[in-house]
Amino acid sequence: MTVKSVEDLAADIRGGGRRALARAITLAESSRADHRAEAEALEAELLAEAGRSVRLGISGVPGVGKSTFIEAFGLHLIDQGHKVAVLAVDPSSKRGGGSILGDKTRMEQLSRASDAFIRPSPTGGTLGGVARRTREAMLLCEAAGFDVIIVETVGVGQSETAVADLVDLFLLLLLPGGGDELQGLKRGIVELADILAINKADGELEAAAGRAAAEYANAVRLLPPGHEGWPPPVLTCSAKTGTGIAEVWAEIARFREAFGPGGAIADKRARQAQAWMWNEISETLMARFKAHPEVAEQLTALGDKVRAGILTPAAAARALMATFLGAANGT
Amino acid sequence: MTVKSVEDLAADIRGGGRRALARAITLAESSRADHRAEAEALEAELLAEAGRSVRLGISGVPGVGKSTFIEAFGLHLIDQGHKVAVLAVDPSSKRGGGSILGDKTRMEQLSRASDAFIRPSPTGGTLGGVARRTREAMLLCEAAGFDVIIVETVGVGQSETAVADLVDLFLLLLLPGGGDELQGLKRGIVELADILAINKADGELEAAAGRAAAEYANAVRLLPPGHEGWPPPVLTCSAKTGTGIAEVWAEIARFREAFGPGGAIADKRARQAQAWMWNEISETLMARFKAHPEVAEQLTALGDKVRAGILTPAAAARALMATFLGAANGT
Repeated sequence: MTVKSVEDLAADIRGGGRRALARAITLAESSRADHRAEAEALEAELLAEAGRSVRLGISGVPGVGKSTFIEAFGLHLIDQGHKVAVLAVDPSSKRGGGSILGDKTRMEQLSRASDAFIRPSPTGGTLGGVARRTREAMLLCEAAGFDVIIVETVGVGQSETAVADLVDLFLLLLLPGGGDELQGLKRGIVELADILAINKADGELEAAAGRAAAEYANAVRLLPPGHEGWPPPVLTCSAKTGTGIAEVWAEIARFREAFGPGGAIADKRARQAQAWMWNEISETLMARFKAHPEVAEQLTALGDKVRAGILTPAAAARALMATFLGAANGT
Repeated sequence: MTVKSVEDLAADIRGGGRRALARAITLAESSRADHRAEAEALEAELLAEAGRSVRLGISGVPGVGKSTFIEAFGLHLIDQGHKVAVLAVDPSSKRGGGSILGDKTRMEQLSRASDAFIRPSPTGGTLGGVARRTREAMLLCEAAGFDVIIVETVGVGQSETAVADLVDLFLLLLLPGGGDELQGLKRGIVELADILAINKADGELEAAAGRAAAEYANAVRLLPPGHEGWPPPVLTCSAKTGTGIAEVWAEIARFREAFGPGGAIADKRARQAQAWMWNEISETLMARFKAHPEVAEQLTALGDKVRAGILTPAAAARALMATFLGAANGT
């Protein structure tokens, strides 16, 4: 691809072209060296247009109704004049589908809206690799004029911390029942949340949702706040009936008033950008390490011995590093 | 040091020799290559004797009375026939003192007990480096016959996750007041806790402590549990009067009954050992990277540009990796 084409693609994206945006994101997801080079040239070209959005992370227990919520929420935002992109971080996602996130069939109405753009999680690889591709997609969506970027995660596993490093604020969706469904949630996820919303507050469960909201409101007072002066609000909503959806957006607007622009959100984004640089370096170093043929050979055997407690982790690491760097250089 | 001396030192440690133990830990903390080699030989020699202890992490807000608690708790354990080691993880610790953790002047009675061994945090370096030295000290203490290893952290900053990766269970100390003193706590630390204890439950604050315990007990029911079937108990205690200290130990005993030996604790330790190996590899790779003179030169300027949003993190990482690996090898 010639430099001119990168400029053309960038121009199309600035003009809001969805096909150009999709193509650019596919480019950014590719691991081919020439695609990486093009993707980075494109991002450098568009960097000045990035950042003009609300970056919102959403997670919740399986079964909480995340897709239904995102659809109702997204349609409300579009109704308010916004352009909404929905991205996803799901390291278990495989080529050919399988991820339950960013699934357009679950958000059919939203996927057909011209002011919405939905993209499934990048597939495979490490959480770090998926997170990198998602943040690049985020920057591209912002350059294309999407002013609300939703990044969803599945709520179990390690993705939430990675997503929290991508976004301005984090919304956690919960069920009215409390208790049992928390088993699957990753430890620490409740304390990550800047806003909590008890979904399915309709019909028989409406009263239970109200009680759950009151209980969580008491609980978050006892937890360290992420942002000073922002005790995380706890709301109820029903994605099915639409109740409470506008209120969730109002809280997000209130958060933005309190912390940006030029304030805590800007600081956070600067720190995040630097962390992304370090993540990239760390991932590349580790990938090279693991790709070394002799390292790969030794890794399983040494790892097993370490797990079994018959070899110290330090000795295993030393042996592998010596292999990687060459025995003469093994310290 | 000859091989025979490593064997002698190992024999002294097995015999419970405190001076030998202190010497071995100092060796493990040293960054000199010859000391590292000796320390690793020593650990390999003693590895079979490691693991026979309860590994307990303790953290809490500044001002909660951590030292007073550890002293009262440690003396109780000794009274019950145990041998207690107190280690610390404090990456802000500097040579010549300054860390408030592992400070023998704050635990004077305990520091004089022959069945106790107190060691300040290793100084300086990265959190990963401090954590490595602490886990090596832990293994050495276990080989010396200490059957309760306490690892304390300061409660703010990043250390808690590192300590949680070192220990079997994590105890969080809180104040009766709730609310304000949480400002300094790191997000996620409450959800890390396997046991919570409201300290200073004496005199005027006794009633407040009881209320705080009830509130936290409600709150933890709403958080994901770390171990299935173990809703974290919330206790009150007074390190000053000794009330509730025995109950904290009883809960720890109950935890061990439920999850080990051969059960979840053994699995956890195997996973932790493997994670330590990967941390070691990652730290070494990163240290080599940062030590490269040309990388160090570029790092500040590129980092500043990334923070300012005028250079993409991926481009900065690529440039630095090319410098590190040699331009011909820069992909």
